[in-house]
Amino acid sequence: MANIGFIGLGNMGGPMAANLIKAGHSVSVFDLSKAAVATLVTAGATAAQSAKEAVTGAQFVISMLPAGAHVEGLYLSGDDPLFDHLAEDALVIDSSTIDAKTAQKVAAVAAQRDINFIDAPVSGGVGGAVAGTLSFMVGASEQQFANAKPILDVMGKNIFHAGVQGSGQIAKACNNMLLAILMTGTSEALNMGVKNGLDPKVLSEIMRLSSGGNWALELYNPFPGVMPNAPASNDYQGGFQTDLMFKDLGLAMELSQLSASPTPMGSQARALFNMHKVKGNGGLDFSSVIQQYQDQD
Amino acid sequence: MANIGFIGLGNMGGPMAANLIKAGHSVSVFDLSKAAVATLVTAGATAAQSAKEAVTGAQFVISMLPAGAHVEGLYLSGDDPLFDHLAEDALVIDSSTIDAKTAQKVAAVAAQRDINFIDAPVSGGVGGAVAGTLSFMVGASEQQFANAKPILDVMGKNIFHAGVQGSGQIAKACNNMLLAILMTGTSEALNMGVKNGLDPKVLSEIMRLSSGGNWALELYNPFPGVMPNAPASNDYQGGFQTDLMFKDLGLAMELSQLSASPTPMGSQARALFNMHKVKGNGGLDFSSVIQQYQDQD
Repeated sequence: MANIGFIGLGNMGGPMAANLIKAGHSVSVFDLSKAAVATLVTAGATAAQSAKEAVTGAQFVISMLPAGAHVEGLYLSGDDPLFDHLAEDALVIDSSTIDAKTAQKVAAVAAQRDINFIDAPVSGGVGGAVAGTLSFMVGASEQQFANAKPILDVMGKNIFHAGVQGSGQIAKACNNMLLAILMTGTSEALNMGVKNGLDPKVLSEIMRLSSGGNWALELYNPFPGVMPNAPASNDYQGGFQTDLMFKDLGLAMELSQLSASPTPMGSQARALFNMHKVKGNGGLDFSSVIQQYQDQD
Repeated sequence: MANIGFIGLGNMGGPMAANLIKAGHSVSVFDLSKAAVATLVTAGATAAQSAKEAVTGAQFVISMLPAGAHVEGLYLSGDDPLFDHLAEDALVIDSSTIDAKTAQKVAAVAAQRDINFIDAPVSGGVGGAVAGTLSFMVGASEQQFANAKPILDVMGKNIFHAGVQGSGQIAKACNNMLLAILMTGTSEALNMGVKNGLDPKVLSEIMRLSSGGNWALELYNPFPGVMPNAPASNDYQGGFQTDLMFKDLGLAMELSQLSASPTPMGSQARALFNMHKVKGNGGLDFSSVIQQYQDQD
């Protein structure tokens, strides 16, 4: 069992830390929200008074923060950068979803200083974080990946080694851009078929079993009533918020811009999620984007 | 065993008719190409001198033609329209991929005249036609569908009842528009990841098993070398031509226009296939659209 410092106890980080505790690890936690810390203490964590205290003596440091600026500030450029306070041979796992450029920048500094820093963003949402079934996309050396895997296995089901540092963020940006394309495309095809008289369940099943088959038709149909357990059949509550998809598409656009990778489809999908967001739907599950296609009564 | 009249013996119609002969049916064939007729005669068909002769006395009439104008001309408005020459209780199965409006128009005339006319476009390509593993998307009444199914089963594997007349064409237009979106989106995500240093096989596998999963990643990866049996690994030979995808996207755009169904993603995908076609790639498999994203050496 390991000593783990965990920083960032939001909707995702909280349950991830709780699963590490359940597995028997010693977890020292820090968050700016005292309520979030208190919840984890009840679950068996040790409360740290600062990020520095949380990582002192830790073999593994895990962070789950909103954006690149927070990660860079925490490790490199803040008042008391954590890279000055890590135990020797500590492995730092940043599970935040941030821009690849910042992940690569922090990793480059770490490499200069002989610090093990890897990026390991997740997918699977709050439900996956609670159930310990997240997917991790990891940018790390072979050795670092092997060292991180037993810890990631506690919090996730599919642990992918995407490549060197930064590759986890790149893989996630690519995947989520493709997800945005699949969801808008599936919404568009379903809406056109239904508007022309087809039954949404019948058309969904035809396309699922044909060359239009994709994750949305398998598990996350955007049309209300087709899948009883999908957010679409629950007024688009829960699931993966439009705001978060819009954030991820911003990261994909940044990656596209920096590498001059053409993204005509991802850009169009982003425009649709943007329109959906400005109409007040940022808090709804992202599959509600189908509403942009539908006739208003 | 049935008497079948088969009209249109192209790359698809030829092997479909051959499978009916193999199954023991009596098939009378007609095509403007004498060579195509001769090939089927060798396989056991009877050569008809006209479409009218091919359908005389037939219990089933199957047509496989390039576009709506040919179907309308054959049955309704040509020199000797077939609707004047069908046997009583004949079932007409049009497997051409045509615009839904024409399919509905021909079906409406058929209904007025008590003729059984159903639309049953296919997917699965020439390989599926030869192997008898096509998918059929059928627009028909329950009774007509039940009557057609034993015949369609000889030529296909998945026989879907999409709804009333015209629904087969609508379902296919929706599915193939979604396929165009999946293929361009998958190409785009793969290209961006690889351009940023990821291995195409690793990224393909991560997305296949994550929320980016779709038919292209399962069976038809557009990146050369990822799947040995995909057209991408064979210089984009064989498979489903860019020209045919462009045709199908035109049918989808027509359906969108007539029903005011928004298609921002399908329209963008169509633009990409159009650009790919004007650069001389109409004869390549459609997954070669990934070349539009790739840096030229």
